[in-house]
Amino acid sequence: MASPSASYSTTMRVVLADMKEIGRLTGAVHEARGVVMALDVVDGSLSQPVVDITCNAIDEVHVEALVAALEGVAGSRVRAVSDRTFLLHLGGKIEVTSKSPLRTREELSMAYTPGVARVCRAIAADPANARNLTIKRNAVAVVTDGSAVLGLGNIGPEAALPVMEGKAMLFKRFADINAWPVCIGTQDTTELVRTIELIAPVYGAINLEDIAAPRCFEVEQELRDRLEIPVFHDDQHGTAIVILAALTNALRVVGKALSEVTVVVLGVGAAGVATIKLLLEEGVGEVRAVDRSGLLPGRSNARLMGAKAWVAENTNPLRLTGGLSEAMVGADVFIGVSGPNMLGREELSVMAPEAIVFALANPDPEVDPELARTMAAVVATGRSDEPNQINNVLAFPGVFRGALDANARKITNAMEIAAARALAAVVPDDELSPGYIMPSVFNPGVVPAVAGAVADVATASGLMCSTG
Amino acid sequence: MASPSASYSTTMRVVLADMKEIGRLTGAVHEARGVVMALDVVDGSLSQPVVDITCNAIDEVHVEALVAALEGVAGSRVRAVSDRTFLLHLGGKIEVTSKSPLRTREELSMAYTPGVARVCRAIAADPANARNLTIKRNAVAVVTDGSAVLGLGNIGPEAALPVMEGKAMLFKRFADINAWPVCIGTQDTTELVRTIELIAPVYGAINLEDIAAPRCFEVEQELRDRLEIPVFHDDQHGTAIVILAALTNALRVVGKALSEVTVVVLGVGAAGVATIKLLLEEGVGEVRAVDRSGLLPGRSNARLMGAKAWVAENTNPLRLTGGLSEAMVGADVFIGVSGPNMLGREELSVMAPEAIVFALANPDPEVDPELARTMAAVVATGRSDEPNQINNVLAFPGVFRGALDANARKITNAMEIAAARALAAVVPDDELSPGYIMPSVFNPGVVPAVAGAVADVATASGLMCSTG
Repeated sequence: MASPSASYSTTMRVVLADMKEIGRLTGAVHEARGVVMALDVVDGSLSQPVVDITCNAIDEVHVEALVAALEGVAGSRVRAVSDRTFLLHLGGKIEVTSKSPLRTREELSMAYTPGVARVCRAIAADPANARNLTIKRNAVAVVTDGSAVLGLGNIGPEAALPVMEGKAMLFKRFADINAWPVCIGTQDTTELVRTIELIAPVYGAINLEDIAAPRCFEVEQELRDRLEIPVFHDDQHGTAIVILAALTNALRVVGKALSEVTVVVLGVGAAGVATIKLLLEEGVGEVRAVDRSGLLPGRSNARLMGAKAWVAENTNPLRLTGGLSEAMVGADVFIGVSGPNMLGREELSVMAPEAIVFALANPDPEVDPELARTMAAVVATGRSDEPNQINNVLAFPGVFRGALDANARKITNAMEIAAARALAAVVPDDELSPGYIMPSVFNPGVVPAVAGAVADVATASGLMCSTG
Repeated sequence: MASPSASYSTTMRVVLADMKEIGRLTGAVHEARGVVMALDVVDGSLSQPVVDITCNAIDEVHVEALVAALEGVAGSRVRAVSDRTFLLHLGGKIEVTSKSPLRTREELSMAYTPGVARVCRAIAADPANARNLTIKRNAVAVVTDGSAVLGLGNIGPEAALPVMEGKAMLFKRFADINAWPVCIGTQDTTELVRTIELIAPVYGAINLEDIAAPRCFEVEQELRDRLEIPVFHDDQHGTAIVILAALTNALRVVGKALSEVTVVVLGVGAAGVATIKLLLEEGVGEVRAVDRSGLLPGRSNARLMGAKAWVAENTNPLRLTGGLSEAMVGADVFIGVSGPNMLGREELSVMAPEAIVFALANPDPEVDPELARTMAAVVATGRSDEPNQINNVLAFPGVFRGALDANARKITNAMEIAAARALAAVVPDDELSPGYIMPSVFNPGVVPAVAGAVADVATASGLMCSTG
């Protein structure tokens, strides 16, 4: 299924023998299965013209094949190959900037000593002033221990930093929130909790990210008990919100009610558990949870602990046994938050009519979406190059924006459900279709809708911070 | 000594009876001892003109007096009073911004998933890549526990945040470094050290700030042992560097050699200890340290611990006893890093000829600088409204810039001395005078000179980080 993508966007600088060969370059890329995205003439001189050709490739081996293809054009030489993703990351992706320029001694003495002392005294006298007089009200910590980063696993805090920087960019781009990466060098639960608690004074909210299950559940719960600011593990709740929103709209398409459908959830990690909880909270008909050992509760998971035990108790009311194949019989909805290539034609064929399939494993879904579309009414994935992308970016910026705007102390289930409903409602009835159940991440209506819904619930339930 | 300053800069919006009264407004401020900084006509209509008058005041009581003075002008009414320092702090003083705009799906997929995964893998494979592919190389944590903030004392982490934000602004403004406030909610030495160690993966260096002595010494030493990045307590070393630079130039003015002078240091806290160490390292003739109990070593401090014990052992070779008055007899240099109004005419009169007085307590110096100038050859303070301001902003931006540029693992005494010499050398012989021993903080030559000197020493001594 691999196809050229922007994550392997590469710019090659080519010296030509003659400008008239320029058309053969794009032809060579095309023949080698690359996708030309741009062509820029760097030096148009007749003697030795130079052009930059930018194309999307499949992987690093494919980039090498493209270079070879370009060098195969008579008289051409590739002088430099620039990986645009790595170029984008040079020196990091975010900056800390001043809101005022500090041009004069006068400005210095207001922003720093001696003027700043009066502001400090005002906060010392009443901690609630920190909300107005510091970055706190609009600052979010993006916290990880690097133990479950994307699909890469336990790569540690340094290697996780590019993801946290990227997340900070998304917070700024979509919700104008100042987010800062906090990559912590321990995977001990107690130490993690204590470290996050101790750095919290600067922040108005904590976004936990890419922390492995089951540690993520314990860390989040403990912090929620200790802190007066919202703590939100995006891999859990952000995912649950976008799935509930997408399911709401998919059900609008097929004309079924949430209370009547049977949902199979494959994968009982952070995302799976939170999704199951939110679906049950919103009144889903029946959930069947499947992990590596099969349907929960099963013989092999008699000794389940914590979150999985909760799932085992609250799902599969018919006490079905077996694996994914058994779970899929008669199911209306499949939600995959697991890994690549977990199901095929056989499992899809036993689903109820007008089936809904969300295959969210990244970058390779649980099932080939092309195949799924031949057998299900609505198909969604996590990929940006397929229709119906289910992406956390649709939820977390608005959720945090709303929580910060309302000065909220917690993000509750009710706020998450409100966020999901608001997100689903961004797609109007007359635009809703099997190929359009989720708005684009660039739809400017998304964040205000989600933020407004979250803030309204926070305000109505009186969950405001009592102090700064 | 209090005089109007920018830290009490206030804008008052005044509704006038008649535009021709405008001149009487500035006169009223002047008579009430305010300093008019700006006058802006907001509404020039003849019927009811409105003007904004911005002036510097002495304190809050004085602001009220100025408002009363303005309302004393016939037919005038003050409609609003804006404290410009508080206005500047609304919503905080710094932001986190993206270096690229994220306009398209293509840009999203390079900065975040799936493209970012390749960058993470590159760092996981070789941690040294974090220096190039993340913010680490140019990121500094500004860390405090809020225990010794400015002259305000132990006001805690939230109330310290405006100072740390201000420091981050200075890092950006003067050295283009991305600095982020880390305000930690504990004053337990072991917890502080461990927390800072655990959050270090994101940063290329740690700036400790406003941590009380003697905890600051222990925290710094422990972190220097544990971390592979520079750890620099600015209250200690930044202060020591600017003092050594200022003393170097003051000695050029009076024509004395450092190796021949006797220096009295009043105050044996973080700044005092570091200053004494650096002066001794650079070969000063004799140091006499004085704390609240008098000259060190004294009877009452027979049981000194840690840093003070080191000072007692390494200073006062004549074993003089007594207090400040005894210490000052024959001294060439007085350095005050203590509190307001500690010495007067009597103590100054027993100093050696061509005396040098640095009275650095902020905002009120150890001695009235006007008095000191009648009795000493060179006088410096920490104030921006007096000649010869000795300000840490002259040191830390260049020191960190140089350390980060050289990928340094530590900031050593040798680097600090090089920084001080480079800073002193920014003032050329033909400009040096009793009233000009230190360059302006806005002198664009300062940071490059200091950074270059620090980086040269780091590179020459091979103190580069082995990993990211």
